[in-house]
Amino acid sequence: MVPGAVDRTITSITSTKIPTCQSGDTVAAILEQLVGNQWESADTIYVLKDRRLIGRIDITNLLQAADTTHASRLMERAKARMHPDADREHAVFLAVKEDRDEIPVVDGDGRLIGAVTSQAIIDTMHREHLESALLSAGIQKTGIKITDLASARVRFAVRSRAPWLLFGLVVGLFLSVISSQFEATLRETIALAFFPPVIAYIADSVGTQSEAIAVRAFAVMDIDYGPYLLRELFIGLIIGSMIGVLGGLGATFIAGSLQIGVVVGLSLFVSSAVATLLASLIPIGFILLDVDPALGSGPLATALQDIISIVIYFLFALTLL
Amino acid sequence: MVPGAVDRTITSITSTKIPTCQSGDTVAAILEQLVGNQWESADTIYVLKDRRLIGRIDITNLLQAADTTHASRLMERAKARMHPDADREHAVFLAVKEDRDEIPVVDGDGRLIGAVTSQAIIDTMHREHLESALLSAGIQKTGIKITDLASARVRFAVRSRAPWLLFGLVVGLFLSVISSQFEATLRETIALAFFPPVIAYIADSVGTQSEAIAVRAFAVMDIDYGPYLLRELFIGLIIGSMIGVLGGLGATFIAGSLQIGVVVGLSLFVSSAVATLLASLIPIGFILLDVDPALGSGPLATALQDIISIVIYFLFALTLL
Repeated sequence: MVPGAVDRTITSITSTKIPTCQSGDTVAAILEQLVGNQWESADTIYVLKDRRLIGRIDITNLLQAADTTHASRLMERAKARMHPDADREHAVFLAVKEDRDEIPVVDGDGRLIGAVTSQAIIDTMHREHLESALLSAGIQKTGIKITDLASARVRFAVRSRAPWLLFGLVVGLFLSVISSQFEATLRETIALAFFPPVIAYIADSVGTQSEAIAVRAFAVMDIDYGPYLLRELFIGLIIGSMIGVLGGLGATFIAGSLQIGVVVGLSLFVSSAVATLLASLIPIGFILLDVDPALGSGPLATALQDIISIVIYFLFALTLL
Repeated sequence: MVPGAVDRTITSITSTKIPTCQSGDTVAAILEQLVGNQWESADTIYVLKDRRLIGRIDITNLLQAADTTHASRLMERAKARMHPDADREHAVFLAVKEDRDEIPVVDGDGRLIGAVTSQAIIDTMHREHLESALLSAGIQKTGIKITDLASARVRFAVRSRAPWLLFGLVVGLFLSVISSQFEATLRETIALAFFPPVIAYIADSVGTQSEAIAVRAFAVMDIDYGPYLLRELFIGLIIGSMIGVLGGLGATFIAGSLQIGVVVGLSLFVSSAVATLLASLIPIGFILLDVDPALGSGPLATALQDIISIVIYFLFALTLL
């Protein structure tokens, strides 16, 4: 669990004062019951049978129907529904997927507990998006408002931002330690020192793209990980070969050495392919560990990609030069 | 304007069949008018005077009021409102800021044109967040669904992802050209070759944080750029000094040279401070140019930060060694 977590249960955002009716009720009876009561939301009337949710009627449909129409004629299936144990993000997911602005919450027996209203969905959606965006930028604060971060005391801003940067520094110095292990190789072929930044840069960029897609796709789709990873690897190989050929040509020209061009080109190719795969695997890992996958689209993934790409580079250099 | 832009006007998502009333109408009269009509949304009843919008009544408040109450007693000011020329993202902004799930659209004379309903707000919010996230990951496709990117033909995926990667490659090779200009310095002090990746990595991380905050803060707050930039620079100086001292100590240890430690530490310090400032300036620049600021939280900003940080590093090396 991410530190500083807020209450993410559906219950915390469920409205319970919502209108219900029985399938045999007429429109006139439902309207009569609607008036004079204090609802938290009246957008949807939920149709119950033995307290079990069997359907929903949009208030716009209710208002245009004839007085004598029965609820059973007007209702549609309440397909989108949630269990109270679900994460509140699930309400957002269902709202987007099923094109609804209110999602009912039912218990294990199908009995209506309440509903997450449009206002709660909009609010939750905004918070979740903000948290993911900040988290993947390496700013770890949950339940925060962007206005706080942009205007609060400097001390607060530094404390939100420093931890992942210090982690990044450790990773970065580790990159330097790796490079220092290849001092002899570097000394022999000084031009090798020109290219680590471009190798890390490209691996990071390719990975960032894969993560952005994976994190969001896994949130809304039922995905077979196997084929998804194969497809990503295939994309990585295609993109990697384009980047590898062009980058290799560029490096040949810059270093004035075909051998170095080949090392740079091969490294770009292999590390791009590895980055697509790794960047999709990390969010899967986090999902399996029940951690917010957005964490995997940030500094942690960048770190791994940078390290792997630099190692690949020096191994090619050692082997081919 | 970003290529491939979709219709972003409010009009494209405005519902016009929404209930209205006059301030003198009684609850009974409003309810009577509500029933039997086909509304696109009935969440809010808009109170008009000479077709001008003067207030709003939530349907939940209408339902619980006594029959003889007048609209003027029930209504609240419709503070959150939009002009039809506004960007549709503005509806999302107002919904979040004013805690509303429906936003009325009024013309220049204050006459009600329609309303953006909760469903349109949820849908727009989802699309805008997705587009920003993909754009800042260097995937340029507007009006796309994440499911398309995660499952569509490989060719489509490659075409969405390749342009910014090729841009990144050009930038990366430019980094190599810069390094190659310092070949003599590198040859003299080979340990200098160990640190460019960590310098670029930290500048990039600090910048990514600043961009994530700036892009979102500028979207929801009225910000005085001057004080905001000064505050960011101050944060950059604090963070930079922490990272600079620790990184400098690490580099001293790795390279076995205090001189190199000083070069690395100072470079980390200066490039962190510059990165916070630059990362806030780029979104401001894009806003002034009327381009989506999310574009500035991505590959373009990373590129600039990497280049500047590497130049800073080698200049310190040249000056101090």
